[in-house]
Amino acid sequence: SRDKYQGNEYPGVVTGLAWTQVGGEILYVESSLSKSKSPKLTLTGNLGDVMKESAMLALEYIKAHAEKLGIDNQMFDDWNVHVHVPEGAIPKDGPSAGVTMITSLTSAFTKRKVRKNLAMTGEITLRGKVLPVGGIKEKILAAKRAGITDIILCADNQKDIDEIKPVYLKGLKFHYVNDIMEVIDFALLK
Amino acid sequence: SRDKYQGNEYPGVVTGLAWTQVGGEILYVESSLSKSKSPKLTLTGNLGDVMKESAMLALEYIKAHAEKLGIDNQMFDDWNVHVHVPEGAIPKDGPSAGVTMITSLTSAFTKRKVRKNLAMTGEITLRGKVLPVGGIKEKILAAKRAGITDIILCADNQKDIDEIKPVYLKGLKFHYVNDIMEVIDFALLK
Amino acid sequence: SRDKYQGNEYPGVVTGLAWTQVGGEILYVESSLSKSKSPKLTLTGNLGDVMKESAMLALEYIKAHAEKLGIDNQMFDDWNVHVHVPEGAIPKDGPSAGVTMITSLTSAFTKRKVRKNLAMTGEITLRGKVLPVGGIKEKILAAKRAGITDIILCADNQKDIDEIKPVYLKGLKFHYVNDIMEVIDFALLK
Amino acid sequence: SRDKYQGNEYPGVVTGLAWTQVGGEILYVESSLSKSKSPKLTLTGNLGDVMKESAMLALEYIKAHAEKLGIDNQMFDDWNVHVHVPEGAIPKDGPSAGVTMITSLTSAFTKRKVRKNLAMTGEITLRGKVLPVGGIKEKILAAKRAGITDIILCADNQKDIDEIKPVYLKGLKFHYVNDIMEVIDFALLK
Amino acid sequence: SRDKYQGNEYPGVVTGLAWTQVGGEILYVESSLSKSKSPKLTLTGNLGDVMKESAMLALEYIKAHAEKLGIDNQMFDDWNVHVHVPEGAIPKDGPSAGVTMITSLTSAFTKRKVRKNLAMTGEITLRGKVLPVGGIKEKILAAKRAGITDIILCADNQKDIDEIKPVYLKGLKFHYVNDIMEVIDFALLK
Amino acid sequence: SRDKYQGNEYPGVVTGLAWTQVGGEILYVESSLSKSKSPKLTLTGNLGDVMKESAMLALEYIKAHAEKLGIDNQMFDDWNVHVHVPEGAIPKDGPSAGVTMITSLTSAFTKRKVRKNLAMTGEITLRGKVLPVGGIKEKILAAKRAGITDIILCADNQKDIDEIKPVYLKGLKFHYVNDIMEVIDFALLK
Ligand SMILES: [Ca+2]
Ligand SMILES: [Ca+2]
Ligand SMILES: [Ca+2]
Ligand SMILES: [Ca+2]
Ligand SMILES: [Ca+2]
Ligand SMILES: [Ca+2]
Ligand SMILES: [Ca+2]
Ligand SMILES: [Ca+2]
Ligand SMILES: [Ca+2]
Ligand SMILES: [Ca+2]
Ligand SMILES: [Ca+2]
Ligand SMILES: [Ca+2]
Repeated sequence: SRDKYQGNEYPGVVTGLAWTQVGGEILYVESSLSKSKSPKLTLTGNLGDVMKESAMLALEYIKAHAEKLGIDNQMFDDWNVHVHVPEGAIPKDGPSAGVTMITSLTSAFTKRKVRKNLAMTGEITLRGKVLPVGGIKEKILAAKRAGITDIILCADNQKDIDEIKPVYLKGLKFHYVNDIMEVIDFALLK
Repeated sequence: SRDKYQGNEYPGVVTGLAWTQVGGEILYVESSLSKSKSPKLTLTGNLGDVMKESAMLALEYIKAHAEKLGIDNQMFDDWNVHVHVPEGAIPKDGPSAGVTMITSLTSAFTKRKVRKNLAMTGEITLRGKVLPVGGIKEKILAAKRAGITDIILCADNQKDIDEIKPVYLKGLKFHYVNDIMEVIDFALLK
Repeated sequence: SRDKYQGNEYPGVVTGLAWTQVGGEILYVESSLSKSKSPKLTLTGNLGDVMKESAMLALEYIKAHAEKLGIDNQMFDDWNVHVHVPEGAIPKDGPSAGVTMITSLTSAFTKRKVRKNLAMTGEITLRGKVLPVGGIKEKILAAKRAGITDIILCADNQKDIDEIKPVYLKGLKFHYVNDIMEVIDFALLK
Repeated sequence: SRDKYQGNEYPGVVTGLAWTQVGGEILYVESSLSKSKSPKLTLTGNLGDVMKESAMLALEYIKAHAEKLGIDNQMFDDWNVHVHVPEGAIPKDGPSAGVTMITSLTSAFTKRKVRKNLAMTGEITLRGKVLPVGGIKEKILAAKRAGITDIILCADNQKDIDEIKPVYLKGLKFHYVNDIMEVIDFALLK
Repeated sequence: SRDKYQGNEYPGVVTGLAWTQVGGEILYVESSLSKSKSPKLTLTGNLGDVMKESAMLALEYIKAHAEKLGIDNQMFDDWNVHVHVPEGAIPKDGPSAGVTMITSLTSAFTKRKVRKNLAMTGEITLRGKVLPVGGIKEKILAAKRAGITDIILCADNQKDIDEIKPVYLKGLKFHYVNDIMEVIDFALLK
Repeated sequence: SRDKYQGNEYPGVVTGLAWTQVGGEILYVESSLSKSKSPKLTLTGNLGDVMKESAMLALEYIKAHAEKLGIDNQMFDDWNVHVHVPEGAIPKDGPSAGVTMITSLTSAFTKRKVRKNLAMTGEITLRGKVLPVGGIKEKILAAKRAGITDIILCADNQKDIDEIKPVYLKGLKFHYVNDIMEVIDFALLK
C-alpha cells in the first residue's frame, strides 16, 4: 500500500513523518534538478505557506554551505530545483518537513543515496539548528507500520519518545540531532 | 457526441478518465509547442491548483529524463509549452490526470503518436512513480461508453477493478503500471 | 442601435454570439497589433477567466499553425497583441467566443477581411477542434435581430437548430464546422 | 471650488463627465510622460478594473494609429506613461472615461493643447468606435454647473439629450461623434 | 514624546499632518535613495492603496519636472527610492500626504534641507495642482501640540482655517498654495 | 528548552524580544547571504506584512549607510539576502523586531559577532531613529527567564522599565538608544 516505505533507490527522495488530518503518516519529499538558463525553485504537492518556507530555508542553507556539503556553487546558476511532496490531493503544511527537505535537496545536488529504512521529522533554521516538532507519538506509530527502522529527531524531542510505551518502540532506533549537518551526515551515504 | 473517443490522429492529444461533478467522464489533454525566445508553460481549461501542479510535475519529469525519452534538451529553451484540457466551462481539479499529462507532453515533444482507443488515469510523482486514484468504477464505465478498449491504471488500483462485476469490464483490457516509463512505453507508438 | 451588425470594414473585428445576463446578444471581438520589443497578450472587456483562456488558446493555435495560416512566425516576436470585447460595463465569460477570437486574431495577423453579415459561436481546443456550446436559440434570435445572414456553428450544434421553428430561421444560412481551419477558410476573405 | 472647470493650460489634462456615488461630476484625466529605459503604463486615482481597461485600450489604440496621430513610434519604447484621475479618495469605475483618456494621452504624446471649456464622456473600442454611456442628464447638469460650454458625446447619446428640457441645455453645445478620430480632431488644437 | 516635532536635520524627512483612527496626528515621511542596477520604488509603513498612489504620483511628477527641480534625470536609472512612513503598527491611508511625499522625495533627490518647524497636508495631482483635504481642525491642533509653527495648506482649505477660533491658531503661520512648485519653493532650503 | 538563550556563535543571529499570542518570548532573527547573479531579499518565518516591512527598512538603511557600516556596496549586487525568524508554526507580526533585524543583517554583511547574552526590541525608521514599542514588561520577564543579561531599548521605553518592580530587573542591564548606529555599535563586536 501507499503507506509502506518504498525503498531508497532514487537520490533526492527522502522519507518524512507528518501529522495530517488523518493522523500520523509517512510522506516522501522528492527533489529533482533540470538544466535551465534562468533557474528557479518550484514547489508542488498542495503545500501550505509554512511548508513552502521550509523548502526556501533548505535551499538557502545549502547555498550558504555549498562548499562544506561538497556542492559546486555554479550549480545554483544552472539548474532548476523542483521539490514535490506526493500526494497532490492532500493539503500539507507546517515546518516539520524541514529536515526531510534539506536532506532531499542535498541528495539531489550531490547524488548521494539515502540510508535505507530511514525516516525523519524536524523543523530547520537558517543557521542550521534542528528544532523539535509536535505529533511525535502518532508519527512514530506511522513509521513503524510502514517498516521504518531508523528515525532522526531533534534532541529536544527525546522527552516525547521517553513518554511512549517501550513496546511501541520495538525495532526502532532513534538518532537525536541538534544541527542540520548531523542529519545529512547520518542520512546520506558517501 | 462529445463523450465519444475521438481518435488518435494528433500527437499531443491523450485521453484521460476523470471524475467530475457529473460523474465519470473521459477528457482530453492537449499539448502544443510553439517557438519562443522566452518559453513558458501555459495551462488552460479551467484547471484547479492541484491539476496545474500535475502539469508542472510532468514537464519537470520530462526535463529531468529528456535523454531517456529521446528529447533534445535544447527544446526546453526554444519552445513554449501549452497544455489545455477542454471543455472550458467545466472546472477540473485533482491529481489523477498526471499520467495523461505526461503522456500528452511526451507525445508533443517526440511527435510519437498515441496508441488507439487508449485511456488512462493516475497520479504521478517527481521520481516517476504512478500512484493510485479514486473513482475507478465511474471512470471505467465512462471509458466503456466512449468506446475505449485499453486502460492504463496504477497497479495499486487493480483491487478496485477486481470489485467491479465482470460484465461491466467486457471488451476492456487493463494495463497496470508502477512507473511513468511503463505508461509512455505502452501509450506512445515508436 | 448598438445591437445592430456594424459592418466588416476593419480587419480584426469579428461578430460573435453571446448569451449574457440579458439573453442572447451579438458581441464584437476586436484584435489589434502594435510593434513592441517585448510583446505580450493584453485582454480587456471585463472578461472572466474562461473567456481569457479562449484568447490564450486562440493565440497558441495560431502560433503553432502559423505557416498554414500564412503568418510569418517572426511577427510573434515583434508585435503586441490586444484582444478587446466591447462593452466594458458588461461582465463576459464562458468558452463560446473561442471561434470568434481565433478568427479575429487571424484577421489581424493576415489583414484578411471578414466575410460580411457573418456571426459565429463555438468553443475551440488546442488541437483545432470546434466544440458545441449552449444558448443556441437565444443567440440565433439575437443574430437575426441584428441583421446577420450567415452563422458558423459546431456540427454538434445542428441538433439545436433543428429544434427551432423554421419561421425563426428564415433568412439565416448555417455553416457547420468541426475544425478551426473550416471556420477561418469561410470567415476570412482571401 | 474643486468642481469648477480649471482651464486648459496643461497638455495632457482633459475634462471628463462622470457619474459617481454623489451624482454627476466633472473629473480630470491627467497624463504625464517621463523618460525610461523600461517604460510601463501606471494608473492611479483609485480606479476600478473597467476604468483601468479604458486606459489600456486608449494606449493600444494610440500605438496602433501612431502615424495617423502624428506620434513617433519610438516614443513608446522610451517613455513611461502615467494616467491619473484626481481625487484619490473617491473610487471611480466604468468605461465612460474612454474618450477622455484617449484625448488626454494623445495630448500628452503630441503636446497639442486641449480646446477650452470642453468636456466629454463615452466608451471607446479598440477599432476606434465611440459607444454611448449612461447618466447623461446628471453629467450634463454637472458640466453646466462647472462652466463647461462644449460637450462631446456619442451620436447614440443624442436621444438622451433630446429628452432633457431645453432650459437645462442653454449655453451648451453638443458635438456628436462615432469615431475616436472625430473626438481628437475636435478636442485637440493643432 | 513621539508626537513632538523632531527637527529637520535629515534631508528627505518631512512632517505631515494626518487624520488617523485616533484623531489628528503629525507623521513623518522619510525618503531614502540607494544605488541600484535595477531601481525600483519601495513603499513601507503599513500604507493603504490610495496613500501608495500618492507616492507614485509624487515620483512621476518629479521625473517629469526633473530639470525644473534641479535633478539629474540619470538619477532615476541608478537609484532605488524607498518611502517610509513610521509607525509601522498604524495603518495609514488617504491622499492627504501627497504634498509631504513630494517634498520628502525632492529633498532626498536634491539634498536640500527642509524648513524648520514646518508641517503640511494636501492632495497632489499629476499636473502639479494641490487639492484641499479634510480633517483640517484636528490636524491643526495636533500640529500645535507638536510645536509646529508653519503650515502649508491648499488655498481651498483656507475656509476651514477661517472657521477655527483664533485662540487655537496662535503661534501658527499658514502658507496657502495651489501648485506643487509653491510647496517645494517654501519647504526646501536652497 | 527552546526558550533559553542559545549563544552567539553565529554571525547573523540576533536575539529579539517579542510579544506573541502566548505572551513575552525571545525570538531569533537569522540572516544569511548567498552568492547570486540576480540577488533578492527572501523573508521567511510566517511573518506578517508589518514585520516584512521591518526587514525591507533594515536592508534599505544598510544600503544607504554602507560606507559608515564598513560594507562594500558591491555586495548588494552579488549576494542574496535571506532573513528568517524561527519558529515557522507561529505567526509573527509588528514593527518591534526592527532593531533585531538590522543588527542581524549588519552582522551577516560584516561578519562581526554579536555581543553575548544580549537581547533587544524596538521599531526602526528609514532615517535611523529607534522608536518605542509595547509589551515591555512581558518581554523583560521572558528575557530574564531565558538567561539574557543585557537589553537594548528605545530611550522612550525607559518609562516602562521604571514602572517594573526592581526585583524583576535584578541581573539585567538596560542600554537605551535613540539611533540605529548606537544599537549596532553596542551589539556587534569589532
Ligand atoms: Ca497516505
Ligand atoms: Ca491521491
Ligand atoms: Ca463531456
Ligand atoms: Ca463547453
Ligand atoms: Ca448590447
Ligand atoms: Ca457601456
Ligand atoms: Ca468633486
Ligand atoms: Ca480628496
Ligand atoms: Ca503617534
Ligand atoms: Ca509602533
Ligand atoms: Ca518559543
Ligand atoms: Ca515549531
